[in-house]
Amino acid sequence: MHGQPEGEDAANSITMEELQLAARNHGMPLEALRYDVTPVGLHYLLIHFDIPEADERTWRLEVGGQVRAPRTLTMEELRRRPAVTVPVTMECAGNGRARLDPRPVSQPWLEEAVGTAEWTGTPLRPLLEEAGISPGAVEVLFAGADRGVQGGLEQDYERSLPLDEAMRDEVLLAWEINGRPLPPQHGYPLRLVVPGWYGMTSVKWLRGISVLGEPFTGYQQTGSYLIHVSQDDPGVPVTRMAPRSLLLPPGIPEFESRERFLAPGRHQLRGRAWSGRAPIAAVEVSTDGGGSWQPAQLGPRQSPWSWVGWSFVWEATPGSHQLCSRATDEAGNTQPLHPPWNDGGYANNAVQRVAVTVRP
Amino acid sequence: MHGQPEGEDAANSITMEELQLAARNHGMPLEALRYDVTPVGLHYLLIHFDIPEADERTWRLEVGGQVRAPRTLTMEELRRRPAVTVPVTMECAGNGRARLDPRPVSQPWLEEAVGTAEWTGTPLRPLLEEAGISPGAVEVLFAGADRGVQGGLEQDYERSLPLDEAMRDEVLLAWEINGRPLPPQHGYPLRLVVPGWYGMTSVKWLRGISVLGEPFTGYQQTGSYLIHVSQDDPGVPVTRMAPRSLLLPPGIPEFESRERFLAPGRHQLRGRAWSGRAPIAAVEVSTDGGGSWQPAQLGPRQSPWSWVGWSFVWEATPGSHQLCSRATDEAGNTQPLHPPWNDGGYANNAVQRVAVTVRP
Repeated sequence: MHGQPEGEDAANSITMEELQLAARNHGMPLEALRYDVTPVGLHYLLIHFDIPEADERTWRLEVGGQVRAPRTLTMEELRRRPAVTVPVTMECAGNGRARLDPRPVSQPWLEEAVGTAEWTGTPLRPLLEEAGISPGAVEVLFAGADRGVQGGLEQDYERSLPLDEAMRDEVLLAWEINGRPLPPQHGYPLRLVVPGWYGMTSVKWLRGISVLGEPFTGYQQTGSYLIHVSQDDPGVPVTRMAPRSLLLPPGIPEFESRERFLAPGRHQLRGRAWSGRAPIAAVEVSTDGGGSWQPAQLGPRQSPWSWVGWSFVWEATPGSHQLCSRATDEAGNTQPLHPPWNDGGYANNAVQRVAVTVRP
Repeated sequence: MHGQPEGEDAANSITMEELQLAARNHGMPLEALRYDVTPVGLHYLLIHFDIPEADERTWRLEVGGQVRAPRTLTMEELRRRPAVTVPVTMECAGNGRARLDPRPVSQPWLEEAVGTAEWTGTPLRPLLEEAGISPGAVEVLFAGADRGVQGGLEQDYERSLPLDEAMRDEVLLAWEINGRPLPPQHGYPLRLVVPGWYGMTSVKWLRGISVLGEPFTGYQQTGSYLIHVSQDDPGVPVTRMAPRSLLLPPGIPEFESRERFLAPGRHQLRGRAWSGRAPIAAVEVSTDGGGSWQPAQLGPRQSPWSWVGWSFVWEATPGSHQLCSRATDEAGNTQPLHPPWNDGGYANNAVQRVAVTVRP
């Protein structure tokens, strides 16, 4: 069990730099797919720089740029605004990156970079409307308090949204998760939540909102989060989550390999599916590694922005099996069997494969 | 920035199995050293098997074995008992494992597998006394509800303590962390907390306590958590935490390398130190990679079982520096400069090294 790894394909080995990231950030252990709302501490986390120190008593949100009436808001002023609570499934744009070959070097996610939380906050649109958006505005920039170096550039973490996306009803400035104040790692005291988009959009430790007359060209917009397959390819921005489904691994695990063991007979397989592009239309299950597929039963839809549960009854026979699930959304997007490669390792929504040994 | 890793030492590359563990489990991001009490979600987590499903309304704790009066307790009965709240620093026995060469293959921790929580629960000793410990009892066995396969054996997670250790005042059956019910990943609804010991001792999802007349020989006691350096070496059990200090990395990080950048001038370096063997007597700091050492100032001791803060004023000059800290406890145990190797990768308390570039 212990000892030096041997016979590993070098292409599959993870560097110490990637390990440093994996030790800081964390995915959602897949058994947590059992919860409609992911408990705090099990929701995935990707923190580019350091979690900043923050005090809600002195926190200020600056709203400015191409607006008629720039303003500064305290947390108290924000909390006096109309508040809503919305369950939202959020996934890291790099989820699945470590399954690509060759593997882009960054946070090495497998399948677990996801979670569903109930976010409480105030809708963004009325705040922008009160500030008075100038004619000619095209984007809204969101600035976090987290600062570091990436791509050789010292920067605060900043991301923009097209104006029409920022003005959608569901975009929130949130100060609570699952009914409690945000913990430091989720953006205390204030964060953006953009339902349907990959997580890089939902800027944490939010301290600035700026309406722009030109598209933002900062590092996190133009040097990162682009899907391109070569240096010459200008790339396409990463935006909304592609459809994905995950299967709650049945039975019990081996500690290191995470291989699953379960008894023969009837098992109800369960999982979740989501897409940021359209509602989930169908989930299919394969118990032979993707050779054949059968429909799963979808559970109730709890919110337009959160995952839907699904289940499938499996008559497990002794032997080794590879379980897979595949989601399709109402726009016709479906999960591929093999990962679509790109240079940054984004949006790999290839089907998950769960190795199971059925034995009495 | 992106692309296939090249020129990496094969001995330093992490396998996909280790990555699977690192994606599930997680360390405490080191900037969280700023908190006296680690917020939930930032405390380290090591979960051998899966987080089990649990409902406190139907949870039962069985107390039995070599006792006069075996009994079964509900959570309501446990909560009616006298309760205490104690801040406890807990560290994984495998912390530092990925710094060993050759690297034992298991959860690949660097330095971050630690956290301090305020645990609320009822002392164990009165419960055992009421049950009436039989003469000849030598150990107490604690059984969790988490089940899986390790070392080729299917098992519930079970660990024992020598009777005199189990009877210490500070050993708790806990149902709250930081003033809130335990979340699933920390052992909901009930766990053991053994202050001073490495974390494998503090059995989560506790459902059985059994007084034994013979030492426990289960896998987690005799097949794991032994410090041995060869197959012939019978090994020494992993018990109490060796002294360790960690330094809150100053300045700002590069996203991937986590290298730090900061401005020249006076900086207050801060960190924490703990030992499960005796109170911390001293912390020293080196700004030249361990070549020379100067004393740090210790902060107030908050509890016999939690870390102590320390600080050190550093006049940072332009260039590259390697910052280290070294703790010594009152029993004379101190941190080594180089990792003490053992087959399972346990209790590596070698000094941390933080690479810093000072530039205007």
